[in-house]
Amino acid sequence: LLRLVLGLLIQGRTTLMENIVRQSIEDEQLIPACTRVLVALSGGADSTALLHLLSRLGPQLGFSIAAAHLNHRIRPSAAADAAAVARLCYSLGIPVVFCAENVPEYARTHKMGLEEAGRELRYRFLRMAAQNTGSVRIATAHHLNDQAETLVMRLARGTSVSGLMGIPMKKLPFVRPLLKVERSQVEAYLHRYGLTYVDDESNSDCSFTRNRVRHKVLPLIEGVHPQAQRQLAQLAQQVCVEEHYWALEVDKHLREVQMWSDELDVELRIDYRATAALHPALRARVLRGLLEKTRGNLRGLEAVHMQLLESMFTHTRPQMQFDLPGAWVARRYAQIVCRRTAPEVERTSFNLRIDGPGSYVMPQGASAEVTLTHASTECALRVEFDAAAVQWPLHIRENRPGDRLRCVGMDGRKKLKHIFSEHRLELEQRCGVPVLCDANGEILWVMGVRRSCLAPYTVHTQAVVRVLFSPGERKI
Amino acid sequence: LLRLVLGLLIQGRTTLMENIVRQSIEDEQLIPACTRVLVALSGGADSTALLHLLSRLGPQLGFSIAAAHLNHRIRPSAAADAAAVARLCYSLGIPVVFCAENVPEYARTHKMGLEEAGRELRYRFLRMAAQNTGSVRIATAHHLNDQAETLVMRLARGTSVSGLMGIPMKKLPFVRPLLKVERSQVEAYLHRYGLTYVDDESNSDCSFTRNRVRHKVLPLIEGVHPQAQRQLAQLAQQVCVEEHYWALEVDKHLREVQMWSDELDVELRIDYRATAALHPALRARVLRGLLEKTRGNLRGLEAVHMQLLESMFTHTRPQMQFDLPGAWVARRYAQIVCRRTAPEVERTSFNLRIDGPGSYVMPQGASAEVTLTHASTECALRVEFDAAAVQWPLHIRENRPGDRLRCVGMDGRKKLKHIFSEHRLELEQRCGVPVLCDANGEILWVMGVRRSCLAPYTVHTQAVVRVLFSPGERKI
Repeated sequence: LLRLVLGLLIQGRTTLMENIVRQSIEDEQLIPACTRVLVALSGGADSTALLHLLSRLGPQLGFSIAAAHLNHRIRPSAAADAAAVARLCYSLGIPVVFCAENVPEYARTHKMGLEEAGRELRYRFLRMAAQNTGSVRIATAHHLNDQAETLVMRLARGTSVSGLMGIPMKKLPFVRPLLKVERSQVEAYLHRYGLTYVDDESNSDCSFTRNRVRHKVLPLIEGVHPQAQRQLAQLAQQVCVEEHYWALEVDKHLREVQMWSDELDVELRIDYRATAALHPALRARVLRGLLEKTRGNLRGLEAVHMQLLESMFTHTRPQMQFDLPGAWVARRYAQIVCRRTAPEVERTSFNLRIDGPGSYVMPQGASAEVTLTHASTECALRVEFDAAAVQWPLHIRENRPGDRLRCVGMDGRKKLKHIFSEHRLELEQRCGVPVLCDANGEILWVMGVRRSCLAPYTVHTQAVVRVLFSPGERKI
Repeated sequence: LLRLVLGLLIQGRTTLMENIVRQSIEDEQLIPACTRVLVALSGGADSTALLHLLSRLGPQLGFSIAAAHLNHRIRPSAAADAAAVARLCYSLGIPVVFCAENVPEYARTHKMGLEEAGRELRYRFLRMAAQNTGSVRIATAHHLNDQAETLVMRLARGTSVSGLMGIPMKKLPFVRPLLKVERSQVEAYLHRYGLTYVDDESNSDCSFTRNRVRHKVLPLIEGVHPQAQRQLAQLAQQVCVEEHYWALEVDKHLREVQMWSDELDVELRIDYRATAALHPALRARVLRGLLEKTRGNLRGLEAVHMQLLESMFTHTRPQMQFDLPGAWVARRYAQIVCRRTAPEVERTSFNLRIDGPGSYVMPQGASAEVTLTHASTECALRVEFDAAAVQWPLHIRENRPGDRLRCVGMDGRKKLKHIFSEHRLELEQRCGVPVLCDANGEILWVMGVRRSCLAPYTVHTQAVVRVLFSPGERKI
């Protein structure tokens, strides 16, 4: 009788598991009809149950199945595992792709941990096997308890709300049909169908930390509340839905992003005022989005870094910059700039003597055209001095700290620093600005920015020295 | 030398703690200048440090301090604790309010746990003491480790993202200036100033669960990552900012809410289509907001209940209802209705015989006016039958399952259920609709809804029986 009751209970659980998985596949459109799904098959409990269940659901839902098994060459039983996997697939009539990789060697060569190397090789192999078998989806056997583990690990290590999404059920081509199923349900399923499995690889190739979370932390948390793992998984579900919302809101704002890139770096710019007008919660996410676009991911960025960036909006300084892990973020007047590395500012010392009309090329590609001519009009890139009042020879050199300019309508001389600031010149642009000096070293022109009040055109002017400035191309 | 180094370390930590607390008070405007703050003083380590630190910051930041101590009458050392608190306050020159409550008795009388009773009495006492001392803020000594504990407990028991806000630093009149300070910093502070304290009440009056989290779960999580508690507190900070954003977004939508209330219940209604158009993440929060407005809180509501409500937007049925803990939610055609309890629908059986003109009152306050007169026009509440074609006596009765009506332009008879549905009559309104029948029991009029095709006005009609329907007042 006891065996009967137990049997019924197990049957109940497995039917439940089947329903949950079918529901997941249908609701989330994990596996489209008339396609093939590749099951990542270690031969352990979870992936064996997944393969068996999918092979039963396949005919009903209209998809076909292949399997892929990687021999990690870490454990001595690897060959036996492969044989067990082969038998299982043969009995279910499922084609299976085998491959062996020397994970320990790969880890040594690429200087990474065994776990990381294993994951990298495994995912590479799975993508390749999917291509070879014509599979559009790759199913892995992560379940609800793996999800809870992931959440606890992230909570301990530190995570933003986004990290609480945990393992995604669908991140194409990868799908996780068992993500709402508990380990105990998987075990009941295996028992019901009398399926045998090898010692799960994931127990050995997982880091020590994950094992500690699984065997020590989670049981204690379940002591606080028996449904704790399910509750954690449910939290992950809510977070997933909300993260989708946030992504849309962030995209709305980042639609206006300006972007330059060369082989070395990428530079993204967004409007400062529009960003400052956002709610701080959305703003933090927009900045994270900007960082993600720039770096490709958010690894190594912590809450403290985001708090640092938030100071751009609490301070009034028009130029601030922050060196973060893998990124450089700055406010530059009306824009926020984000790059992988701080812009390199080349400060080249030079001194170009100008004895008369001609074309003069500066070290970084800028040039000046000097002519003696009749007066016309001045503009930002073209100034004219009374030829009779100019002290030859002239010089063009880089601007230097402490440089000052005699400005129109002002006694004394003004620091170039303040002139740059009035013109809202970004810090990186400032060093690229050359100055034109006369024989006495007096600055006649902060080239392209502002003219001094010296040697102006007057009614008595007969001829002018015209200087035409062609700035070099701006590099990012 | 060791003592010197240790001393310097402790000094460093305490200066740090002082800075953190000062920063918190200033950034979050916890305690306005020129006001008084009441410190909840158990006499334990945390509250002793808080009192001492605030007494030092007060003169700098311009606030004054009072203290309040509640004797819980749970522990035998209660009197000694009170004496220690009195000495401490005397030495700092801070006025202190004492009170004793019989927590165990209160718990017995009100059938609640010791912990809950203690909290309720404590907070009641603190509010009273704040009023008596003219304090606009009440400071409690919750610190970063309390925050981490709270998060772990909620994560285990199940929480929405909102629950990860943890303990708020500011929920007026309550403020928690130590929320960014770690327990070890508090201990260093006490050591530095040579402060003594009693065994903290919070260790004994806290539930077994919290103690287990503190002494078992958190140390293990710290084994995963030494900064785990700080990381959890940081997550709470991000969630706080994002919850503020969500609250604003939800309020935007709930601004349009319609509300009725009487002494028994409250009914809130929002537009179905506007809600259906929201992103699922925002929609779930709007529904939670609606539930919170209705119930006063969200206690006892779980993820599964919210998933249930979401089915209103995946199904096309125009009327659905859900009994949730402490609330009843329904779709009623174009609106979503939320109440504390399901609306009570009174079905009263009655049969009112009508032998001729007169005024007839139905059991629930509705009435009908019957006259013999010349034909005019019909409307929803007034119909006219050819007096020569009507079979007397007439009857008015409640509508019954299976009732059918001969409709204009249609063979046979239509179920009232379908007529109600065509008229988008809410389920609760349907039973309130009486029907007018003739001597044969044939329904002449579904009162206020639709007329039958019987006894119509024709060119030969000389007089009509006019029936005027006055529905009773709608109750919520």
